[in-house]
Amino acid sequence: MGNARLRKQLQFILEIDKLKTILRQSPLTDQSRKENDAEHSWHLAVMAILLSEYAKERHMDIFHVVKLVLIHDLVEIDAGDTFCYDKIGNREKQAKETQAADRIFNILPRDQAGEIRALWDEFEARKTPEACFAAALDRLQPLLHNFHTQGGTWREHDIHRQQVIQRNSPMQDGAPTLWEYAEKLIDEAVEKGMLKE
Amino acid sequence: MGNARLRKQLQFILEIDKLKTILRQSPLTDQSRKENDAEHSWHLAVMAILLSEYAKERHMDIFHVVKLVLIHDLVEIDAGDTFCYDKIGNREKQAKETQAADRIFNILPRDQAGEIRALWDEFEARKTPEACFAAALDRLQPLLHNFHTQGGTWREHDIHRQQVIQRNSPMQDGAPTLWEYAEKLIDEAVEKGMLKE
Repeated sequence: MGNARLRKQLQFILEIDKLKTILRQSPLTDQSRKENDAEHSWHLAVMAILLSEYAKERHMDIFHVVKLVLIHDLVEIDAGDTFCYDKIGNREKQAKETQAADRIFNILPRDQAGEIRALWDEFEARKTPEACFAAALDRLQPLLHNFHTQGGTWREHDIHRQQVIQRNSPMQDGAPTLWEYAEKLIDEAVEKGMLKE
Repeated sequence: MGNARLRKQLQFILEIDKLKTILRQSPLTDQSRKENDAEHSWHLAVMAILLSEYAKERHMDIFHVVKLVLIHDLVEIDAGDTFCYDKIGNREKQAKETQAADRIFNILPRDQAGEIRALWDEFEARKTPEACFAAALDRLQPLLHNFHTQGGTWREHDIHRQQVIQRNSPMQDGAPTLWEYAEKLIDEAVEKGMLKE
């Protein structure tokens, strides 16, 4: 098997299978278990395609958004999932994730390692229209899951309205209409006792 | 919440969360459990991006391939996964899946329901270069999983070399180089006793 480039690509493809075992805090909507990072990334990719009309910047590259969300959690193979309301965990997160990016992406041939790294850096920096829209989807999806599971992780961890607003308001930068909708869901969640005032 | 279009889109997005509970035959590479359709679709989408250079048709639309693989298994929410070596199951498969497509895709606003249906029909017909490449990836991924789990479902179901070749040889139409590589893996699997001669 003389194709060294293909071997590296397939080694990476096997490595990222591990993303399927990294559990997030959000429950599936049937509440049977917590969601994993791979299926979460799939969900965001489909959302990017179906909800593109709500992006703040109309002339953006949706395929680029799809690429961002497909790879945005790969670093968690090594760094694990950090709960967004965990203050201490989030302080150490960046260093752990950068180290993970260095190891995992470099399994690929150099050109592709560079491309994936650039995508991940862009997602993290949240400055391009595509990264802002990707980040909005990454916030909307768990919010939908929590709302449709009678509070999900909000109830489990005694989360307050203000924390959810602070966490999710960056949705405005990527998808103002979706943030408007999310705000109404947050109000309703408080009314129904899924989320503390 | 006056946005009827957005409500339909979000209802669909919640509905397809069920894809995460539809189990396939293939094991994860760590053998901890069977893979589900959502994470499988994510894996194929990443593969489409990283392996596009091996597509038989060089001038194709990779984003289109990504869309095909992201939605190709949605019908299994109603129809379930049919094991590719199950002859009887595969006779009834088409009718069940068409009924599923009618129900699930039509949760979306009409224009998007039509787009997703067209993508699914295209994937199933396997005639465009994009659909042929998508189909090749859909065969390569479980083959890699079986090879890297000492035979996986091949051993579990007493599968023979000829069945694997018959199932996977359509890879030639979408990605000849990947099929060449797969043939070598199949030979090695037989040599190592993961697959019956």
